[in-house]
Amino acid sequence: MAEDPGNPEGRITTERRGRLLLIGIDRPHKLNGFTPKMLGELGRAYTGLEDDDEVWCGLLHAHGPHTTAGLDLPKVAPLMAEGVDLYGPDSVHPMDLHGRRRSKPLVAAVKGITYTIGIELMLACDVVIAADDCRFSQLEVKRNIMAAGGATIRMVERAGWGNAMHVLLTGCEFDADAALRYGFVQEVVPAGEELGRAIEIAEEICAQGPLAVRATIENSRTFVEQGFDAAVAAFGPTNRGLLRTEDAKEGVQSFIDKRPADFKGR
Amino acid sequence: MAEDPGNPEGRITTERRGRLLLIGIDRPHKLNGFTPKMLGELGRAYTGLEDDDEVWCGLLHAHGPHTTAGLDLPKVAPLMAEGVDLYGPDSVHPMDLHGRRRSKPLVAAVKGITYTIGIELMLACDVVIAADDCRFSQLEVKRNIMAAGGATIRMVERAGWGNAMHVLLTGCEFDADAALRYGFVQEVVPAGEELGRAIEIAEEICAQGPLAVRATIENSRTFVEQGFDAAVAAFGPTNRGLLRTEDAKEGVQSFIDKRPADFKGR
Amino acid sequence: MAEDPGNPEGRITTERRGRLLLIGIDRPHKLNGFTPKMLGELGRAYTGLEDDDEVWCGLLHAHGPHTTAGLDLPKVAPLMAEGVDLYGPDSVHPMDLHGRRRSKPLVAAVKGITYTIGIELMLACDVVIAADDCRFSQLEVKRNIMAAGGATIRMVERAGWGNAMHVLLTGCEFDADAALRYGFVQEVVPAGEELGRAIEIAEEICAQGPLAVRATIENSRTFVEQGFDAAVAAFGPTNRGLLRTEDAKEGVQSFIDKRPADFKGR
Repeated sequence: MAEDPGNPEGRITTERRGRLLLIGIDRPHKLNGFTPKMLGELGRAYTGLEDDDEVWCGLLHAHGPHTTAGLDLPKVAPLMAEGVDLYGPDSVHPMDLHGRRRSKPLVAAVKGITYTIGIELMLACDVVIAADDCRFSQLEVKRNIMAAGGATIRMVERAGWGNAMHVLLTGCEFDADAALRYGFVQEVVPAGEELGRAIEIAEEICAQGPLAVRATIENSRTFVEQGFDAAVAAFGPTNRGLLRTEDAKEGVQSFIDKRPADFKGR
Repeated sequence: MAEDPGNPEGRITTERRGRLLLIGIDRPHKLNGFTPKMLGELGRAYTGLEDDDEVWCGLLHAHGPHTTAGLDLPKVAPLMAEGVDLYGPDSVHPMDLHGRRRSKPLVAAVKGITYTIGIELMLACDVVIAADDCRFSQLEVKRNIMAAGGATIRMVERAGWGNAMHVLLTGCEFDADAALRYGFVQEVVPAGEELGRAIEIAEEICAQGPLAVRATIENSRTFVEQGFDAAVAAFGPTNRGLLRTEDAKEGVQSFIDKRPADFKGR
Repeated sequence: MAEDPGNPEGRITTERRGRLLLIGIDRPHKLNGFTPKMLGELGRAYTGLEDDDEVWCGLLHAHGPHTTAGLDLPKVAPLMAEGVDLYGPDSVHPMDLHGRRRSKPLVAAVKGITYTIGIELMLACDVVIAADDCRFSQLEVKRNIMAAGGATIRMVERAGWGNAMHVLLTGCEFDADAALRYGFVQEVVPAGEELGRAIEIAEEICAQGPLAVRATIENSRTFVEQGFDAAVAAFGPTNRGLLRTEDAKEGVQSFIDKRPADFKGR
């Protein structure tokens, strides 16, 4: 496939839409293969999502017919070998595995070819909407490397050992229905409708108390990462904090008034 | 909806049926909204289930067409704000998160509106039968609070991150089929049949060696709460203890005699 | 059922097929009930799989129409009561719970009656193919003992609490479709095709970089057994090790040459 002369190294687009930040993978002439430039921009986009108080939810999507064929290895591998942190050392890491973690909800819309880093980015989001033309493959084993962006953890967490091993150890291609059955995606829609549906869900999330949304993510993450007792121990302090917010008062008032709440995020 | 003058604050019913203890949520005129009185009675019912050696299995169900619309907040919130333990400080906590834990199996039958505490009570049971008219919603985020009765843990444990976040972060309503797919419920039956089917399963559990049933719950809980190695370490001691019981001898003898075992719980 | 005079205590067969080691449960006249002799041979077969550098993947299957009805208790129980390690003290334990662990991938093909140890052996594998005539039952509770070969852990890990408790606390029989829904098996095929399909998947696994396959199993196991942070911490060291192998060079070269990789396992 020819390079797009206007966008040879690709880019990450960002677009504000109300409380939403749309983050777009944009290098369709090369199946959205990630270049170092794109990885750096992706890290900055995630950091921007985190730092902008006006934004309450992120939405990861892709330009063109495919999510991504993966890393553009000839460009990326030399830098990886040098140990360069391609997302930027102070960035919110899009794989959400270590370092500065994201606190805001993230929805993903995926479609067509969704390979390797595409799956791992999607599994690092909270809710995923898949087009029915998705072709997933976590194919690192074909190159004798291990998926190191979270798939070895998150596939097991969602699908259980057997289903995770099936796709991890064979590197096989699987479709949207399989991904739904594995819990990797939450809904499958006709191709072309995945972004619209993802926006709908993201807006639904934005209509809830944003501090409670973030507290929920944090508590569930505490369970997954630190265990049952740690999550239980956080229930009391978390809700005492939430109850002191303006938004909690609005939550109760809107309930009494039988109207949707108008939250401020404080 | 009008109060029932004979039952204004609602109540929790208990009924012995052989080895079973049926625990019923009973305030149908108010969609079984939980009052402080009901929460206290619920704690005592769970404690009774635990303490009565003649009872081997509990069954949580609801009177009227719905499980529950949740807490009756105007009545409950002031006491919660004072930090009162509404289930009773020495009770077996129905959410089974801390304090005195239950050791006996619990089956739940749910139907119609099953919101917030209704879902969390059900997820704190072992097996759940759902009527096909169920309407589930974990809607705390609509009030800018966090579900603090176990949903942030148990939804992730059962359904995986994506499915759990979908329902937790939007507060959306979902039906019995979705709950089945998420592993929140184990069977969906036509509305009206859920209690009968739950009793059937509870009686099936009661026909097994009750000490082995409790040991199984404890071991799986050890895995979920303390991890793989702790659960494995308990295999030997647990089964050595079980093999010394009268019921283990009866288990072997009934196998030789090709008849159902007649267990005594010792 | 009459004993087979040529095979009264049963046996475990092993057969090399390229990079595959087929391990067969062989006592069909007694529904493949495991004798002490068979358990010892099973332990040696798993150890052989681990120790033979020429073999990259194991495949557990059964001779005759059934996987196994379980342990031949009259023969096995006395030795268990004495605390004999029936798999052999230095063996790779087929239940993969403690002691020397396996590092190589294992596929299982199950069919017909698949009870107790049959389920636990299958859940200790990575990928399971089930015939559509499977009859599963984890029936230890019927004898007032606890399943102590991993079911209390692995059923919860794959299916979530409710589904796991349903089958563990009732000892009920369930079929291949239920096992698929629970994630206990990965595919259901018409009876008679399960071994062929399992071989297909095992060969697909053998076509991937074998060191990356083992690293993937190890990393996911680290997540399940030691937690999220431990798994994340291993990403970097694991892939730096893999990138130094001959097979990683072959992986890249085969990608450039657009041909399947020819891995050597070093």
